[in-house]
Order: sequence, then structure tokens, then C-alpha cells
Amino acid sequence: MTGLDRIIENALAEDIHTGDITTLAVMREPREARARLIAKEPMVLAGIEAATRVFHLLDPLILITPHFSDGDALKTGDNIVEITGNASSLLQGERVALNILQRMCGVATLTARYVAAVQGTKARVVDTRKTAPSLRILDKYAVRVGGGVNHRTGLYDGVLIKENHIAAAGGIGVAISRARAYIPHTMKIEVETESLPEVAQALAAGADIIMLDNMDTATMVEAVEMIDGRALVEASGGVNLDTVREIAATGVDIISVGALTHSARAMDISMLLEVS
Amino acid sequence: MTGLDRIIENALAEDIHTGDITTLAVMREPREARARLIAKEPMVLAGIEAATRVFHLLDPLILITPHFSDGDALKTGDNIVEITGNASSLLQGERVALNILQRMCGVATLTARYVAAVQGTKARVVDTRKTAPSLRILDKYAVRVGGGVNHRTGLYDGVLIKENHIAAAGGIGVAISRARAYIPHTMKIEVETESLPEVAQALAAGADIIMLDNMDTATMVEAVEMIDGRALVEASGGVNLDTVREIAATGVDIISVGALTHSARAMDISMLLEVS
Amino acid sequence: MTGLDRIIENALAEDIHTGDITTLAVMREPREARARLIAKEPMVLAGIEAATRVFHLLDPLILITPHFSDGDALKTGDNIVEITGNASSLLQGERVALNILQRMCGVATLTARYVAAVQGTKARVVDTRKTAPSLRILDKYAVRVGGGVNHRTGLYDGVLIKENHIAAAGGIGVAISRARAYIPHTMKIEVETESLPEVAQALAAGADIIMLDNMDTATMVEAVEMIDGRALVEASGGVNLDTVREIAATGVDIISVGALTHSARAMDISMLLEVS
Amino acid sequence: MTGLDRIIENALAEDIHTGDITTLAVMREPREARARLIAKEPMVLAGIEAATRVFHLLDPLILITPHFSDGDALKTGDNIVEITGNASSLLQGERVALNILQRMCGVATLTARYVAAVQGTKARVVDTRKTAPSLRILDKYAVRVGGGVNHRTGLYDGVLIKENHIAAAGGIGVAISRARAYIPHTMKIEVETESLPEVAQALAAGADIIMLDNMDTATMVEAVEMIDGRALVEASGGVNLDTVREIAATGVDIISVGALTHSARAMDISMLLEVS
Amino acid sequence: MTGLDRIIENALAEDIHTGDITTLAVMREPREARARLIAKEPMVLAGIEAATRVFHLLDPLILITPHFSDGDALKTGDNIVEITGNASSLLQGERVALNILQRMCGVATLTARYVAAVQGTKARVVDTRKTAPSLRILDKYAVRVGGGVNHRTGLYDGVLIKENHIAAAGGIGVAISRARAYIPHTMKIEVETESLPEVAQALAAGADIIMLDNMDTATMVEAVEMIDGRALVEASGGVNLDTVREIAATGVDIISVGALTHSARAMDISMLLEVS
Amino acid sequence: MTGLDRIIENALAEDIHTGDITTLAVMREPREARARLIAKEPMVLAGIEAATRVFHLLDPLILITPHFSDGDALKTGDNIVEITGNASSLLQGERVALNILQRMCGVATLTARYVAAVQGTKARVVDTRKTAPSLRILDKYAVRVGGGVNHRTGLYDGVLIKENHIAAAGGIGVAISRARAYIPHTMKIEVETESLPEVAQALAAGADIIMLDNMDTATMVEAVEMIDGRALVEASGGVNLDTVREIAATGVDIISVGALTHSARAMDISMLLEVS
Repeated sequence: MTGLDRIIENALAEDIHTGDITTLAVMREPREARARLIAKEPMVLAGIEAATRVFHLLDPLILITPHFSDGDALKTGDNIVEITGNASSLLQGERVALNILQRMCGVATLTARYVAAVQGTKARVVDTRKTAPSLRILDKYAVRVGGGVNHRTGLYDGVLIKENHIAAAGGIGVAISRARAYIPHTMKIEVETESLPEVAQALAAGADIIMLDNMDTATMVEAVEMIDGRALVEASGGVNLDTVREIAATGVDIISVGALTHSARAMDISMLLEVS
Repeated sequence: MTGLDRIIENALAEDIHTGDITTLAVMREPREARARLIAKEPMVLAGIEAATRVFHLLDPLILITPHFSDGDALKTGDNIVEITGNASSLLQGERVALNILQRMCGVATLTARYVAAVQGTKARVVDTRKTAPSLRILDKYAVRVGGGVNHRTGLYDGVLIKENHIAAAGGIGVAISRARAYIPHTMKIEVETESLPEVAQALAAGADIIMLDNMDTATMVEAVEMIDGRALVEASGGVNLDTVREIAATGVDIISVGALTHSARAMDISMLLEVS
Repeated sequence: MTGLDRIIENALAEDIHTGDITTLAVMREPREARARLIAKEPMVLAGIEAATRVFHLLDPLILITPHFSDGDALKTGDNIVEITGNASSLLQGERVALNILQRMCGVATLTARYVAAVQGTKARVVDTRKTAPSLRILDKYAVRVGGGVNHRTGLYDGVLIKENHIAAAGGIGVAISRARAYIPHTMKIEVETESLPEVAQALAAGADIIMLDNMDTATMVEAVEMIDGRALVEASGGVNLDTVREIAATGVDIISVGALTHSARAMDISMLLEVS
Repeated sequence: MTGLDRIIENALAEDIHTGDITTLAVMREPREARARLIAKEPMVLAGIEAATRVFHLLDPLILITPHFSDGDALKTGDNIVEITGNASSLLQGERVALNILQRMCGVATLTARYVAAVQGTKARVVDTRKTAPSLRILDKYAVRVGGGVNHRTGLYDGVLIKENHIAAAGGIGVAISRARAYIPHTMKIEVETESLPEVAQALAAGADIIMLDNMDTATMVEAVEMIDGRALVEASGGVNLDTVREIAATGVDIISVGALTHSARAMDISMLLEVS
Repeated sequence: MTGLDRIIENALAEDIHTGDITTLAVMREPREARARLIAKEPMVLAGIEAATRVFHLLDPLILITPHFSDGDALKTGDNIVEITGNASSLLQGERVALNILQRMCGVATLTARYVAAVQGTKARVVDTRKTAPSLRILDKYAVRVGGGVNHRTGLYDGVLIKENHIAAAGGIGVAISRARAYIPHTMKIEVETESLPEVAQALAAGADIIMLDNMDTATMVEAVEMIDGRALVEASGGVNLDTVREIAATGVDIISVGALTHSARAMDISMLLEVS
Repeated sequence: MTGLDRIIENALAEDIHTGDITTLAVMREPREARARLIAKEPMVLAGIEAATRVFHLLDPLILITPHFSDGDALKTGDNIVEITGNASSLLQGERVALNILQRMCGVATLTARYVAAVQGTKARVVDTRKTAPSLRILDKYAVRVGGGVNHRTGLYDGVLIKENHIAAAGGIGVAISRARAYIPHTMKIEVETESLPEVAQALAAGADIIMLDNMDTATMVEAVEMIDGRALVEASGGVNLDTVREIAATGVDIISVGALTHSARAMDISMLLEVS
């Protein structure tokens, strides 16, 4: 079972559990129906496969006819996808499908706004590990659909050395050389810094990537100048739609934004159902 | 394993997977540390048990000293809880614990604003099934902490008869009598209506609860008058912080708000770590 | 995976585990076969979908031709269903399918006897939580097939306030008002009583349902009279086929019977197999 | 996690799911309580460890004081075990613990009656695979407690060659030699027979165990005589408390009884709770 | 889900986890491809179904055309199987399929060498429980393909009484009679011995199988003579390709070899892929 | 549950399943015992925590006294660890613990031989994805203990562009630029090459790591010279203990060796048990 299917199975079990008691009680005979998912506001579409997979897992005989693809810009009233089949299956899948789709569209739409805000600079907008617990693959996929790029997925597939690691190792040089000896040769080493002297140390110690954590933009400019292309530079902390352009203008390579995944508002999408 | 533990185990597996490679590489010797979770803005605290359970599941020897309880109103700078023990365990649990806590505080804080907005009316603010997939028990708990009340948990523990059910059954009277015959005697029957004639029919058919779906407040007033205490009345659709007070003033018993759980912004909380 | 599929997968794993060693050793070549499930005594059929699903999960190419439906009254010798396909699959599924079907028919048949016994009264026969561990959805389904109605499914989807709850809360009024404030508006409140004074208190406190626990029928008559339609009345305890009619005659609305699910005898059904 | 723990976890999840809503709503403060499990009729005790494990898995701080052991003969009123601790934990575990214990005592008690019925003969009473789906280890344990012995656990740990296997292999000799070549040397081969000529063939082909399926006792006597100790003899089919003694008197070694596990009545046991 | 599918699902999750990042990044459009698995050295083929099942579980539209069957002797360059379909699916399944197939062929090939070495004697070569954790069913299957026979699968489906069991029981006679009373009548009893006096005791106590543990061949000859067909005889310990023939010549019935499954070298097999 | 615990739980379930029938039958009373794990040949110890965790998961009261640590060089007869506690628990855990420990010591010991063979060169010995299905974390840990370094863990945490990826993308430049745009900035890009012209192309296209696949050492020398430190160089294919030194002498940075994990022989370790 893929990660996506597991997420959907868990969500369906959570919502349906022992059965949709209303439908079981009231809709005794099978009925054919047609459902349409309608955008109720402008948005970037993300999650069409995940949302329709919900119905397919509930009932393999459901037919799916998508009218848009992930990444498309939708306007109010757009008919995203038609889903036809047994009415009970459509009613049972409705809420889970919408919960997934509305969240993913929310993340993609917010990401697209950040990406637009830095257009013309060299900065890429990346996500963080501040995702909804157990939904990280959906959140990170939606960031990509919105034009962002992913940071490491978790603690296991990327190295980020922080102040406490350095303190425990007894210095930034030791920390980096320990990491280099331990990690696969396929990984780079990123170091978090909070001041220009720390940037200088990280650079001297051979960091591949230097994170500027919560610095003001003036300091960032100095840092970028000091690093001068010898390491990638990531800005982190205090990023929002009002500040992101100015941060990008400092010349950093990467801007990481927690809000993309922890504070995106759900997009308004509803399902219209016609029972035939 | 409880539902909470399963959520945490999944979230930890998602984040740590084969191991926190930075800590494994750099922190060779065990170090004691003290972490504090700090509120960076005012909020209603929710999820303290869930967040600290993360550390306990990672490492049973971690000590937890909470300074506040769920439901407390926090101000900026409040030290929510102290967590002491092995530094690696603290670093590994940090992100998952914060992801859970920031989301739950966000939901509770937003709920509290809705509850405050209707204060003095008889309306109760309730949630919906518009929750993050597989996190419903956390979302619904946070709503309660914020002063709201839960609607049914899923499709299995409450009856809500919609237009399509009525059409399939051939009428609202048939739909209700089928439901009454089928469901446990411990459940009530709620019917969704979109107009005053539908309200009248639901009332005549013996509905225990009548949902007024997307009605304007003038119509709601008429509906409440028509129902006159013979059924509970729930307002649904188009509810936000600007409109909720006016809706409450119509005399409805219950106002359900999707935004509580699908669009709450994460509260700003950070973890300070001191390695000794 | 649905709850039914999970039950079947567990049962198959329990029975087959690393393989049907006899068939693996002896039946080297695939053989087509036809199996028939035969009723060896009169019974109410329940579980035909669950039983045949066993074969389908083992082998999607198996063909199922049912001759009867759940709820049908079978007589000795009736050919319930024909199952054709690979002989090994039929042999491997036989025992699990029969174990499920024999149990479910037993529950439905016993329920039907209780329902018949109260015919003409207004009482409905309901089940309890006294089901076989992890088989509750099958047991409760079989009760419905037999003409009974379900009580709450578990501790989570219905409220039943018992003596200890009342003692802990400090009185029945407090207990009910706490419950009303906490539970979804879609749920009713049931209170367990053991004497007429307790019935009077529950009624005064606004219970929606009053359970008369282990009362004699004379007391039940008084209780029904006292309640007088202001709450639903459930009789519980000491119910068997000899007493159920007299209990129904007291005017109670609901009679709950643990024996339906904890003491039903398995019906006699066997599988005849012809290898071609 | 052991098989027992998995059964209990599943049963608790089934019953409690998102929470014991009554206790959550009404019992706000933790209360200490003492529960006693009381036998309400004579029985053979079985399952004391499984039943009390329920409380321990819910709450490790619960204290268990058993007064009897599995295999003990209980009389009405016996106080089986005392369980003290948090009242909520006791209330939440009550039903699952009783469902397990009542079923297991039922199986052990019925088994003990069969064992008593054949006392003085050489026959051992054994169970079958006709157990409740996913509860086989509990059912088979209870049979042992009642004085019976287990047959093979499933299709994987014992060989039983039936008519269809023989037909598919092309003869009993081929079937047995195929089995002997394939199975571990630690297993015996049992063959099902329905007539004396089949018994003769099985014997000639070197079966270790010969099952006499649905034979009358006169034929059984002849079969036992014919076999004359060269193979073990198992009687199967049509066994009940009225016939088992006569069957044992034929001289068979083993009598298998499906009713032990598929039709045992639950024993009457209740839990008395005192909240302090 | 069968045991095989569970092993494959785990292996795929282990290798692919959140996605094959190279293929996701680089191969944007679906491409058809043809893969061939090629033997790079002579070997006994084992695991063709397991290996190709990997691709089928990843992608049900993959087509499989096997050119050889399990048990076939392959020579260098043989094209074992062709697999056609989506290139991404083939790339994602390659490593897991090969890991399974190379291991299973290794076990089968090594087993075949032991079997060849004892040809003409009556000894059967059997495996042990010294298998790779959680891969036992694959390892034991490969032993059978190589011409060996399985010993018991685990601790649950066969009895092997060792020195410590005998010491705990207080003697070999007690140990065997306890076992006989407890175990299903379908199982035999094997006893481990380390000297001729122990062999004599086991024989006198009625052991069905006597294991000669780490004896020299001269002693084995004496033991076989002493036992004289009254029990099966298994040689164990110190068996390798240099010694196995001499051991077989002692007249033992069974020779168990741990190396078959714990030290088989992976066979050299590679996958050639052509993208069209 | 950690990955290690899941592996052990699966292995214990595989071996013990419904119970250690010999011990259940024969050892009626609990007995204290002391076990020692003894090295029967020289080896590098790896897996002491995993092996002893087996006993701890079976029985939390078991006491573990290790005399050596992972990475220690053991000689024949060394007493690795003492384990004391209930004899049944020791007997039940013995095989699983040894299966894990013998495999891990085998991998570490073989790795140490490769590492010794390249001593004095700058080459690091790394593993591959050719591990036993579902045991990768153990295999890769043992490689580290033996002095090797890990390559990427799976397809998800490192990029390796092969010939088919390049063909599908339409050229190596396109493939690398697509990868750079897609992957987290924390990952490097490795490209597989089979000839010097391909090396030149990979270098020109900006590959971070260049794999020399199945080249002879003369060609490797040329490749290393051509690359001249502008990318890391990995040698792969045809590596064994006879060739590894010569390959290292070519100046490559990394040598990957499949045999470390797919063909390591199990080390000879046995458990001595004394029941008191």
C-alpha cells in the first residue's frame, strides 16, 4: 500500500468507521448519481489524484472525469472533476475527498503567492517540516504544485547542524568533520547560523549550505557577500508575504517558509450531487 | 495503542524514519538538556498532553513539568512546559511536538473567538467533519478546549438526512421513519433544510434537529419561530467571525463552523534548548 | 480495507498462516471444483456476503452464485450458494467461511425467535455490547437480519449513565446536565435505574431514555405508567425466551438481550465439494 | 505484541474507539474504585489472565488480586478477582474483560462436561477449527483448561487428507506418499475415512491417524478392531453429550467435538464496582 | 494479504519510501520499457513468482513473461523472464526483485549441492530455523526448490526436547509423557541427544525422532544401529559440503544444515532495461 | 515502535507464533536460568543491542550483562554477553537473537576485511541497496560497525542518474538540470558512467559525484585524472577482496561493494544455557 493510500484509508476509517448510518438507514436501493467538485473561489488546483483516489478506494466501479490538472489556476465556478457511480459511495467519500483537496489547494495557492512575490530574483521558495502530522507527503507535494521546492523531508534525509549540535561536538569544525565522515557521500551539510561571525566559521569549516536564521535583511546582504557563492545560502525565520520580496532581494538562494504548510487556509470547494 | 499514540507514532515515523542523521553523526556522547516551550503570541493552550506524550513515547526517561493546563489563556513569553532529559530525544521530538501543539492551540484559539462572539446568546458553537485527515480526534478535542462543542464525530455516530437521502427515499416522511426504525434508540435524527417549506416538512415529519443550511438571517428568524422549540435548530454555512453574532441572535441553538478546524492558523510556539 | 475485510483477513491468517500443508503436498495440479453450502437444519440466513467474501479475498477468480439472501428462512437441505473455481482455494476458505456463516446464522435465528415472541407488542428487541471480541459488526448485523435493532455500538456512540457515574458526579441532575453540555446534540441520554424512586429522579432530571435494570414485571408496569411517554423505556436483565413476552407486555419500548450475541448456538451448515 | 495482546487491543478499540463518552462527560475528577468479578453460576474458570490483562493494557497502574486460578471449579457467588484503581479505567475495561472471560469459561465448562462423560475410557476429547474467527488461541486455550486436548491449530501445522485430496492425487497411496515426501518429519499424517473399505486402504497406505467420519458406533467398533493399534483412531461428527460416552466405548483414541468452541453458552459473570 | 505480499510490501516501502526521487525528477513523461533478468552464473532458479510479484504489486499493468520455472538449472546468460510496462515501475521494482531473487536462488543452489552430495543414500537434507529474520517462508521455500525438505517452521509446529527441557522436567521419561499429553495427536516428538546413553534413554522413553547433535560419524553409526528403525534419526551440527556425504553414509534419515539459509551467497543476476 | 523493534517483533512472531509448544508442554514451572552467547570463531561484534533487545521485548524482567561492545574484535571462546532470567524466555528468544547477531557480525566482519584491504588509500568502502529485504537498517548499521560507510538508504534519499534516465530525459545536461530543479538543495547528484566519454559529459554537466561502473582499473585511473577533484568518484562493479586494493589505488574516493550485505557468511555464535 502506498503512502497516499494509507492516508486515505485512515481518513476513511476515521469518518465512516462502522458505516454511514444515515445512508444505510434511508437509501435502501442502489442509485446512480453524478457528482461535480466546484471551485467556489480562485485557487491553484492541487490534489486531484488524491481526492479522486478516495472514491476509487471506496468503490472501484466509480468513474472519474477530471477537467483540470494539478497546477491549473481555477476561477470561481470551475467544474474540477465529475465523478459518477453509486450514490452511497459518492456520499461516503465526499467529506474525506474534500478535506484532502481543500487543504492541498490551500497549500498550493499560498505557495504560488510566495513564488510570485519573489519572481525575478534567484531565490527559491521552499517548505519546512512544519506540516500536519502524518500528512507531510501531501503537504510537500502541494508545495511543489504551487511552484515551490521541498526542503529535506525529515530528519533522516538531510543534515542540518544547529547550535546545540555544535556545542555538543565542541565546535563547528569538529561537527562538520564528524558529519562528513558519517553521512552518505550523496548528502550535503547545512549549518544554521545566527550572526556574521558564525557565518564566517561555517564557511571556513566547509559547510555546503549556510542557513541565516532570523537575521535582518541588512545582515543577510553582508552574509551573502561574505559567502560569495562558496556555499548555498538559505534565509529562514520571519518570512511572510510582506517581507519575502525584500529577503529575496538580498541575494539568498533559498527562502524557507513554515506558513506554507502550517497556516494555509482551506480553499472553498463543494460537491454537487445529482441522484438519477 | 490509543488513537493519540497511533497519531504520534505515525508522525514520529514520518519525521525520523531511519534516524536523525545529524544527531547520530555529530552528538556522539549522551548529553542532558532542558527544553522549554515558549508562547510567542497570546493564545488558548490546547494539546499539552499530546505534545509532551511525543517525548515520552520517544524516551520514557524524559521528565515533563507543565506550567499551564489546556484551556489556559497564554500571553507572549509564557513558559508552557519544561522538558528535561537526553538531548537527542529532545531534538528528535521537537518538531513533531510543536507541529501538534501549534495546530491544536490554533484551533482552540480560533474557537474561543467564535465562542466569545456569541456570548450572551443561547447558541453553542460546534465543529464539523472538516478536519485534517486522520487528526480528527485532536481537532475536535481542541474545539472543546476552546469552549466549543462537538458535532457528530463521523458518519457512524449521528444521523443527518440531506436532500439526496430524501429524494432517494421518496419523501421526508419515509426517510425519517426508515431512519427511526434502523438507528439505535440512543440517536436523534437531524434533517438538512434549505427553505421554510422544507423546515415545515421536517418539523411535521418529526425531526429531532433541523439544520438551516445557508439561509439568510431573516429566514432563520422565521424558521426559529416556526419550529418554536419542537426541534433543535442548527445554523450552517457562511459562518465567519463577522456574521456569527447576527446568526446567534436569530435564536438558533447550534452554529456549526468549518473554519474552526480547516482554516485555523498555527500559533507561534518555539522550543528553547539548553544542553548542559 | 473495510472492517469486514479486516476480520476475514485475520481469520484467514489465523487458519492458513504459512499454508494449507495438506493441499500443498497432495494436490500438485490446479483442479476446478464446485462447492455448495447446505443448510442442515432450519434457520434464518445471515452472513452470505461475509461468507462468500472469504473466497473472493483468497482468490478473485472464484465465482459465487447465491440462491438465497440474508433474512430468508431456510429449511433443511437448502442449497444456500454455489461457489466454483480452483479447488485449493475452496478447500482453504471452507472453514473460515463456515465459521463466520454458522455464527451469524445462529445469531439471526435466535434473534428471530425473540422477535417472534414479542410480536404484537410495541417492544423492539435490541442487542447489547456482549459480543464476541472483534466480531461486533458481524454480530450486530446478524441481529438486524433477525429482525432486531441495535443498541449503541460501543462506549463512544451513545450515553448510558450508570449508578457509579451518578455517584461520582454527586447526583443524577448534575450527571445529566454535565452530559448534555458535553455530548453532541445528536445524541440522547439514557439513565440506568434499579428502583421506582430512581426512575422518578431520572424522569425529573430530563433523561431521554430510562433503563429498568433487573426489575420484576410488576415494577416495570409501574415504571412505564410513571414515565407515561415522557422518555423511552428499556428493559434489561433476566431476559430469556420464557420471560420476554411477559416483559414486552409491560409496555416497555425496548428489550435488550445479551444472549442474542453471547450464547447463540452455531447453525449446522456444511460445504459439499466436487472436484471435476 | 503477543497474540493475546493483539486480541485485547482490537476488542478495546472496537468498544471504546474515540472514548467512553459517558465517563468523559460525567466523571470529571479521577476516582479510586474497587471491582470484583463474581460468578453467578457454577463453572470452570478459564481466562483469568486474559481478562485481567484487559485492565492492565488500559491502565498499567491497575492492581489485580486473583482469588482463583484457571481450571478451578467455581460455585455461584465466588469472588474471582479483585481489581482496584482508577474508576474510569475499570468502567472502560469492564465489558471487554467480561466478554472474554464469559466466553472462555463457557468453553472450558462445556469441555469439562465432555471430558467427564468419557471418564474411564481411553478417549481424549479434542477441539476442531470451528472457533470464533480470530479468537482461536483463546478458544483452544479454554479447551485445554477444561481438560480437553487440542487438534491441529490450523491448516499449516497438521496434515488431514480428505476425500477430495485423494481424488485429486489419484488414490490414497499416492496422496500419502506425496505428503510424506513434502511435510516435515515432525508431522504425522491423518486420513479421513467414511467406510470400512476406506479404513482398510488408509491403513494399508501407512496413515499414522485414521479419522472415522460420521460412522455409527457399530462400524466404529469394527474399524478400531481392524486398525488394531497400527494407527491412532479419531471419531468425528455427530458427537454430543448424549452420544459421546458410547462413542468413547468403541475404543477410539480421540473424539473431536466442534460444539466445544462454536456453541458454548457464555457463563454468567458480573462485575461489581464500588467507587470510593 | 498473504505472507509473501507482506514481505514484498515491506521491502518496497523500505526501498522507495516517499518516492524514487531520481525518476520523479528526471523522467517526466511515462515511457514503455522492456526488462530482462539475466543469470550471470549457473544456478538453480528459485523465487520467480516472488520476484515478479514485486512488479505486479507496484503496477498491475506490468506484463510478465517467464522463460524458466523454479527448480530449473540455469546457465550463464539465460534470460529468466521478460517484464514489460512503464519504465518507472520497472526501475522502482528492480532492486527489491533482485534482492529477493538473488537470495532465493542462492539458497536453492546451495541446497542442491548438498542434495547432490548425499545422492544414493537414504538421507534427506533439511533446513533449520537459522533463516533471515522475517524471510523464513522464502528461505524455506527455496530449500524445497533446491531438493531439500523443511524441518519444523517454528517453535509452534513441532516438538524438539532439548537438554534443558529434560533437566527442567526431571528426566526424559517425564518430559516425553508431558509432551505426549499436551500436544496435538498430529505431531511427533523429537529429542536431542549428545551421547549414546542419551540415545538409549530417548529410545526407551518412546521418542519418535532422535537427533544426534554434534556426534562424530563413528558414534552416529552406533546410534543408528542401536535405534534400528524404531525412531527416525536426524544428524545435526558440523555439517558442511565436505562432511555431509560421510554423515549420510552412517544411515541417518535426516541431515539438518544451518548453512543452507544463513550462509548462502547471493547468485549473480542482473536486470537489463531497454526504454522504447 | 522503532524500526528495530518492528523487525524483532516480526521475527519473534514468525518463530513463536502461537507458542513454543515444547516449552509449554514440558517446562511447567518457571525456572531461572543463565545464558551466555559465545563466539565460536574470530569476528567483529555487531548487533549486541539488537540481539539483546529480543529478550527484553519478550520479557522485560530479563537482565543483560554485555562484556563487549559493537566494533570489538572477538576471538574464539569470548563470552559476549550474559542474559539471566526466566528459562522459557531465554529458550524462546535464543534463535531469533542468534539469527540477528550472527548475520550482523557476518556483515561487520566482512566489511572490516574490505576496509583493511584498502588501508592507506583514500578510498572509503560503502554498501549498496543489495540488502536482505526489510533488514536494511540492520545490514547498514553492521557495515558502519565494520568500518564502512553507507551509500544512500533507498531510492528516496539520494539521486543516482543512470543510462535509462538520461535516455528518457534526452541527454545528460537535461537530466541533471531537471534533477537540480526538483530535489532538495541538501542533496547531491550522482551520475553513472560506463566510459570515459560519459565521464567527460557528466563532468561537463556539473555532476557532484561520478560513478565508474564496471570499468577496468586502467580506465579508472584515466577517469580520476580527468575528473581531477571536480567531482567525487565512486567505483562500482566487480569488486571483491582480490581486486579492491587495486581499485583503491586508482585514486577513487568511494568503492561500493554489494557483497558486504548480500553474501556475508553468518558468524558462528552459540548460546549456552544453564537452568538453575
